[in-house]
Order: sequence, then structure tokens, then C-alpha cells
Amino acid sequence: MADDKKMVEAITSMEDDFAQWYTDVCTKAELISYSNVKGCMVIKPAGYAIWENIQKELDRRFKETGVENVYMPMFIPESLLQKEKDHVEGFAPEVAWVTQGGLEPLAEKLCVRPTSETLFCDFYKGEVESYRDLPKCYNQWCSVVRWEKTTRPFLRSREFLWQEGHTIHATAKEAEERTEQMLNLYADFCEDFLAIPVVRGRKTDKEKFAGAEATYTIEALMHDGKALQSGTSHNFGDGFAKAFGIQYTDKDNKLQTPHQTSWGVSTRIIGAIIMVHGDNSGLVLPPKVAPVQAMIIPIQQKKEGVLEKAMELRDKLGAFRVKVDDTDKSPGWKFSEQEMRGIPVRIEIGPKDIANNQCVVVRRDTREKITVNLDELDVKLGEILDTMQKDMYERALAHREAHTYEATDYEGFKKTIDEKPGFVKAMWCGDVECENKIKEDTGATSRCMPFNSKPIADTCVCCGKKAKALVYWGRAY
Amino acid sequence: MADDKKMVEAITSMEDDFAQWYTDVCTKAELISYSNVKGCMVIKPAGYAIWENIQKELDRRFKETGVENVYMPMFIPESLLQKEKDHVEGFAPEVAWVTQGGLEPLAEKLCVRPTSETLFCDFYKGEVESYRDLPKCYNQWCSVVRWEKTTRPFLRSREFLWQEGHTIHATAKEAEERTEQMLNLYADFCEDFLAIPVVRGRKTDKEKFAGAEATYTIEALMHDGKALQSGTSHNFGDGFAKAFGIQYTDKDNKLQTPHQTSWGVSTRIIGAIIMVHGDNSGLVLPPKVAPVQAMIIPIQQKKEGVLEKAMELRDKLGAFRVKVDDTDKSPGWKFSEQEMRGIPVRIEIGPKDIANNQCVVVRRDTREKITVNLDELDVKLGEILDTMQKDMYERALAHREAHTYEATDYEGFKKTIDEKPGFVKAMWCGDVECENKIKEDTGATSRCMPFNSKPIADTCVCCGKKAKALVYWGRAY
Repeated sequence: MADDKKMVEAITSMEDDFAQWYTDVCTKAELISYSNVKGCMVIKPAGYAIWENIQKELDRRFKETGVENVYMPMFIPESLLQKEKDHVEGFAPEVAWVTQGGLEPLAEKLCVRPTSETLFCDFYKGEVESYRDLPKCYNQWCSVVRWEKTTRPFLRSREFLWQEGHTIHATAKEAEERTEQMLNLYADFCEDFLAIPVVRGRKTDKEKFAGAEATYTIEALMHDGKALQSGTSHNFGDGFAKAFGIQYTDKDNKLQTPHQTSWGVSTRIIGAIIMVHGDNSGLVLPPKVAPVQAMIIPIQQKKEGVLEKAMELRDKLGAFRVKVDDTDKSPGWKFSEQEMRGIPVRIEIGPKDIANNQCVVVRRDTREKITVNLDELDVKLGEILDTMQKDMYERALAHREAHTYEATDYEGFKKTIDEKPGFVKAMWCGDVECENKIKEDTGATSRCMPFNSKPIADTCVCCGKKAKALVYWGRAY
Repeated sequence: MADDKKMVEAITSMEDDFAQWYTDVCTKAELISYSNVKGCMVIKPAGYAIWENIQKELDRRFKETGVENVYMPMFIPESLLQKEKDHVEGFAPEVAWVTQGGLEPLAEKLCVRPTSETLFCDFYKGEVESYRDLPKCYNQWCSVVRWEKTTRPFLRSREFLWQEGHTIHATAKEAEERTEQMLNLYADFCEDFLAIPVVRGRKTDKEKFAGAEATYTIEALMHDGKALQSGTSHNFGDGFAKAFGIQYTDKDNKLQTPHQTSWGVSTRIIGAIIMVHGDNSGLVLPPKVAPVQAMIIPIQQKKEGVLEKAMELRDKLGAFRVKVDDTDKSPGWKFSEQEMRGIPVRIEIGPKDIANNQCVVVRRDTREKITVNLDELDVKLGEILDTMQKDMYERALAHREAHTYEATDYEGFKKTIDEKPGFVKAMWCGDVECENKIKEDTGATSRCMPFNSKPIADTCVCCGKKAKALVYWGRAY
């Protein structure tokens, strides 16, 4: 049974080699397959189903705030990409260029979108004339391309899937509110749905999006103590509108410049799910995002009535996403597969269980075995999944808190970064020189300046000058 | 009010200029906007919401048949595209080529996928080893690029959205069954959901997909009497598997070659909705696919209680997709907008209606005005929408039947094609020379050889030799 073998081969343990553990989980849990197109991956059914659940939930939350979906071209003419100076500097070095269409060379080369601010601006220029046309809150689900040198599944690939929201507003205040609203929407989504606690904050100028006035971010801590930027929301002020000549007439018939935002979450977030929740048996999926929430595994399935009972249970659990593994593999193989795939619980049912009108529910995260009366299974399963979702969040939060440190002097800072993987909170003067020095000395970058934080010292941890902001620092994916 | 003006400017009448009528509807109903990227369109919220409903319904129907979604890279290396001879000949002349990634020229140029058979084959080669790995029934929702010279919104654009299913099976029989199953799924979807009757049949060799053994198609007749290919399903036999070296071991441990299919429906189908159902007031959407099924339009909305009643009605109609137009435009403007946008019904409610505990429901297709007691509105609205959906299908079917002709001699055939826009049924000998001659003489192409058809003559309408098949001929988009 070739399939079985592939699935249950032991994976590298995360303590031995976290990077290898990660790629083992990606392939053995059948989330992806490497393709012959360098830097691009195939997202297999088990991986894509996670993305579909993320899409469905985020899309629902977007629409509740009045966002509408659209679709923009995937190509950007070179002259359009160049209209906003900072933006083109940020993206031009890493785009893929189409230079030939059909049998003819193109008069103007086109890049495959790395992000679509320029296309939305070009579109809004034709759509926005009066204050009555504002705001417009549009989003698209699509793939984008960035020609990365080193690539890793989900975390950094030359092509990835994402959503990009692009809004345009009459006033700076409205744009700022939308920027914050979407950042908070992302944070709530990560915490509620993916059981991933995040730090909400603002990026320093060095780390902000090319062309943005302010970038807000949610930062999550992976199991190995490295940070992962998990979603960003940008306030562009009127910079793009000015570069693209977008104007509107206000109620007093005066010409005004609108304000814009953009915000995005990508398939990268699947990397966060793997690295926050996974263990040495494979993937562990939070119940809310899991494509299959419970796998029923019949024991001695050839005995009369076992398979029928398994199917009957599945049909009674219609409120959940449940499957029966009725393949001819042994229960042991099936357990390993269910664990590798991260299916939140398995339900074991055999002749003895049936005789006792019970089954055994086994939680993927804790391995806890819970004997449940079959008459109560639908209620109990709901409770177990709810508890598991909460526990996974609490465990991830406890892990982050246990790996968040403070430093007030530079020697202590460097020592912590080197010896204790995690976030280090430290004060910063606001100068990019200190950020550059810290990165050079330690490999850590400023992850964010958390909202509403209290200073922990008066001086910059690096240069000793007067501090302006508390920063979360860390090595990052 | 700039928006209003744009919306209700009269559109070209379809009798005067059908092509202009079509593009007027596309832009005035705010389905699309032309972009600065030649041949690519922006799909605006009203257009994209139609596509979302199509996606949701098709995806549900696919999954019921065991299809799983995946995502493949958008790039195909030149060497991979070239592996199947007929396929590369069919597609190479119309692909876009990426020749530069970041600041470096690529060692091997990559085309932006025009379709993904080659990628799926390359993937299946690594995934399929044993009969236990079969079948695999995968689908992806994505955008594809074909470098067309002349482009039209939805009907022919350089980039378009679609789904492409790619399956691989142990036997020829299974592949053939899947090919037919998906063609029938498309046909049922068009008829039930989009109210578009289709002719199901097989393409001639000249018209089949590059690399396919057999292509099945659904063909719809537009209001102007031209045909539109609305979905296709291809049986590849083992041709691609041989070209890519895909093999599996069967139960007797012998090496076998698997059989493959692919099938797709694209945003083109939105063009069919427009051209089958639209009229001189704009779009007419079948209720099942309409993003908004009913627009409540308050009359004298500033009078006390009117707007509140409109909102109350909307909330009571939660089983439907209903909006209230509470803008400060006049009711007349609002009626025109609702008609242009093709919203299936409007519900007019004013002070007199409220006093009589009633409202007026106006059907978009027939303009029929139906006075409905407010206590019965939810039931009646369901009935009205159901009836409208059925009537729209019946009307489209009657139109197709009235515009389907037969010809048994070549003079009559040419005269019918020239004078009577529609399908012409005529016998064919099976030679591509006759197809070429007919196309040259009349501009008509063979649309399909319908399933289970009866011969209407013994000889080919073109050459007079013995006939092999009945063909639907027509000028097509």
C-alpha cells in the first residue's frame, strides 16, 4: 500500500530540525507538492480545502463591513507600475515580466501583478467623480507573483494566493478608520477562527509597505520562536491619489483628493497554522478551519454491523464535517493518517463499543480519550471541538507569553535574541540606523510597535538616546 | 447626479446594433469597465457577484460528484507545454510569455497558462503509481490568458476567469463516463440555474480541443441568432498520459496507462446570460443567479413610516436576496436603474400601499405588475421568482426553436444561413473539406453533432456524398 507508506513514514522531529519538520508536514499531510516550476507549489486538496475555509470565513466578515468583490487584470503595464515612486522602487526588482504575446514582442512590457494598487488607482480614476461615488470598498481574491530567490511552501513562493482589499474614501479620517477596522478584523479572525494569538501594531517606516503612509500588522509567534507577519493593512493617505490624479468634487463643488487603503492576507497564514499548532505527529488543525473535523475509524470493520454503525453515526453528525475511513487499511494506519492530516478528533467505534452503545473520541491535540454514549455524541462532539478550539488558542497564547522577553540594555537584548527564541520588547529612538544595526548584529527585525503600549524604559535599547516607541523585535519568516 | 445620468442614459437598441447594445449593457449595467491593459477588463461588483453565484452553484454540483479543488502554478515552462504535440500547436500561437524574473532574464521562458493540462499531467505523473491512486478528480478556479487579437467583454478577452477540471482514471470507460457526466452537469446547470437551453453534442475533429480524442459541448443560441459555445468537456483517452509517461500498476501488478478528461466553464457564460435574456432596457437576470433578486423602492420615501416599512419588508424577506434603494434619487430613476441592472423584480411601496397593507411587485422580464398583500409577500415573492425563472427558460427555448432550421440542399442551406440567423440542422459527410467550404461560403461553423439525433437526409448538404452525422451549423461568437 504505497499511499500508506508515504503517509505514515516518520517525519523529522521539530526539535531536531524545525525547517525540515515544516516541509515534512507540508508534504506528508498532503497539503502541497513541489512543482516543476521553480518556486511555485501545487496546493493539493487537503491544503486547498483549508484555504477555501479561510476564504469563506474572511469573505463573510468582509462583506459584513460593506466590502464588495471585483476582479482586476493580472497584468500591469510598466508605465502604470512606475506612477508612484516608492511603490515601483519596492516592487520592480521582484516582478515577472511578460515581453511577448502570441508570436509578437509587446510594445510595452507587462508585469504580472505583485499587488494591485496601481490597477485599482487607474480604475478609481475613471470611477470617482463626486463625493457621491465614495467610499468604494473593493476586494479581490487572486494570485500574485513576486520573483523571490529562496522559496518555501506557503511562507515564500513566487506565486501565492491572497485577497487584496483596496478602498477609497472622501476623508483621511475615514481611511484611517478603515485601515484599523481591517487590521482588527484580521486579528479577530486569526484569534477566533485559527486559534492564533497575534500582536497588533504599527510597522516602522523601514518595514512599511512601499508607498504607504502607515502600515499596521498582526504578528504571530511560531513554535520555534520566530515571528510571522500574518496580515497587513495600509493607509496610503492621498499619496497614490495624487500620483494618479484621482480627484472628486465635494458637496460644495470643490475639488478634493481622496484617501486610500489596502489590506491583505495570503496563503502564508496556512504556514502559521502549521507552525503554531503542529507537533511531531504532523499537522493539528483548529476545529473551525479544519475541512474534516472528525474522522470515524471503524475497528474490526469487517464484523457485521460495524461499518453500518459508522455510516449511521456520520449521518447523525450532519452539523459537523465528518468522514468515515472505510479503506482496507489497518486501524493503526488510519490513526496515523488522521494524526498526520491534523483532523481535530477521531471517533473509534468497534463491536464492543457498539454493544455498550458508546464510542471513543480522541482529541488530536492532547490525545485525550473520551468515552461518549452514542445518544449524546452530537452534543458531546460539539463541546469537545469547542473546548479544543479554546485550548489550542490558550496554549498558543501561553507559548507566546512564555517566549516574550523584555530588554532595556543592548547587551541583554543581544543575549536574549541569541539565546531565547521569541519576541523581545525593547524601546527604540525612532532612527532607522538603530534598526539596521540591530538587524546586522542579531538578525532580528522590528516586528511592530504595539497599539496602546506602555514604555518599559526611557532610552533606546540600541543607542541610548531618548526613546520614542516600544517595539516587538524578533527573527522572522 | 452623475451616477444616475450614467445609468439611465438610453442604450443602443438591439435591433439597431446588437453588438453595441451588448457592450452598452456590459458597461451601463456596471458589469465591467475597460482597463488600460488592452484586451483585459475590470469585472465590477455587479458583474463579479454574478460570477460568485455561478461559482458557488457549480462548485457545489462538482463536489457532489466527488470533485476536489486544488491550485496549480500559473506558469508553464516552454518544455512542458511542448510535450503533447497537438496541444502545443493549438495553444503556442496565443500565449503570453514571461521572459524576465526580477532583474534577470529567465533561463527558460514561461508561458502564462492558457489551460493547465500540461501542469496536471506533470503533477499526476508524480502522484499516480497504483490503481489505488485512481481516480483523481481535481478542479481549479483560476484565471487564464490567451493572447487574442480582437476582444470583447466576457466573450473574448486576453485574460478570463474559469474553472478547469482535470481527472485521471484507470479505464477508458470511466474517463468517457466522467466526460459525459460533466457535460450533462454543465447542461443541467445552464438550463436550471441560468434559464439557458442548450444543445448537447460532440464537436467535429476540426473544432475539438487541441490534444483531445473527443470534445463534447453545450451550444446556446443568443438573441441575435448567433451561437455561443457555453461549456466543453474533453476525453483525452491515453494521449496525454503517454506523452507525459504517466503509468500505474493494476491489481495484477501490471503497468497500465491511465485515461484523462478535462472540462471547463468560463466568465463567457455571463455573455450568454446577457445575450439570451437581455432587452432594450438592459440586463435581465434569471432569479436563481441574480445577486439581488428584489429591489424594494419606496415611493414618497420622505413621508413618515415609508422607509421604515421598506426596511421591515426587507427584513421579513430574509429567504431572498433583497435590498432597499433608499438613495435620494426619484422613483423613476430607481426604476430605470433596477431595470438596467436586471434585478428580477422591484417591489414598490408607498403611503397608499401601506394604508392598504399591500405593495406592487413588478417583474423585470414581462413588466407585469402584481399587487400583493403584505402578509403574503414572502410566499408570493417566492412564487413570482419561480415562475419568472421558468418563463425565462421557456421563452429562450421557444426563441431557439423558432430559430432552428433544417436544410437538405446546399443552396437552401446558404440561403438560410444568410437570411435567417439561428441554427441550421444539416447532414454532413464527415470530411473537413466540407466544413471548410461551408465556413468560407457562409461564415457558419459546425457547432456540434447532437447526441441521439435522427438523420434528416442521406447525403451531405455540402458535397452530396453519403452523410455520416447530423450537425448543428451556425455563425458563432
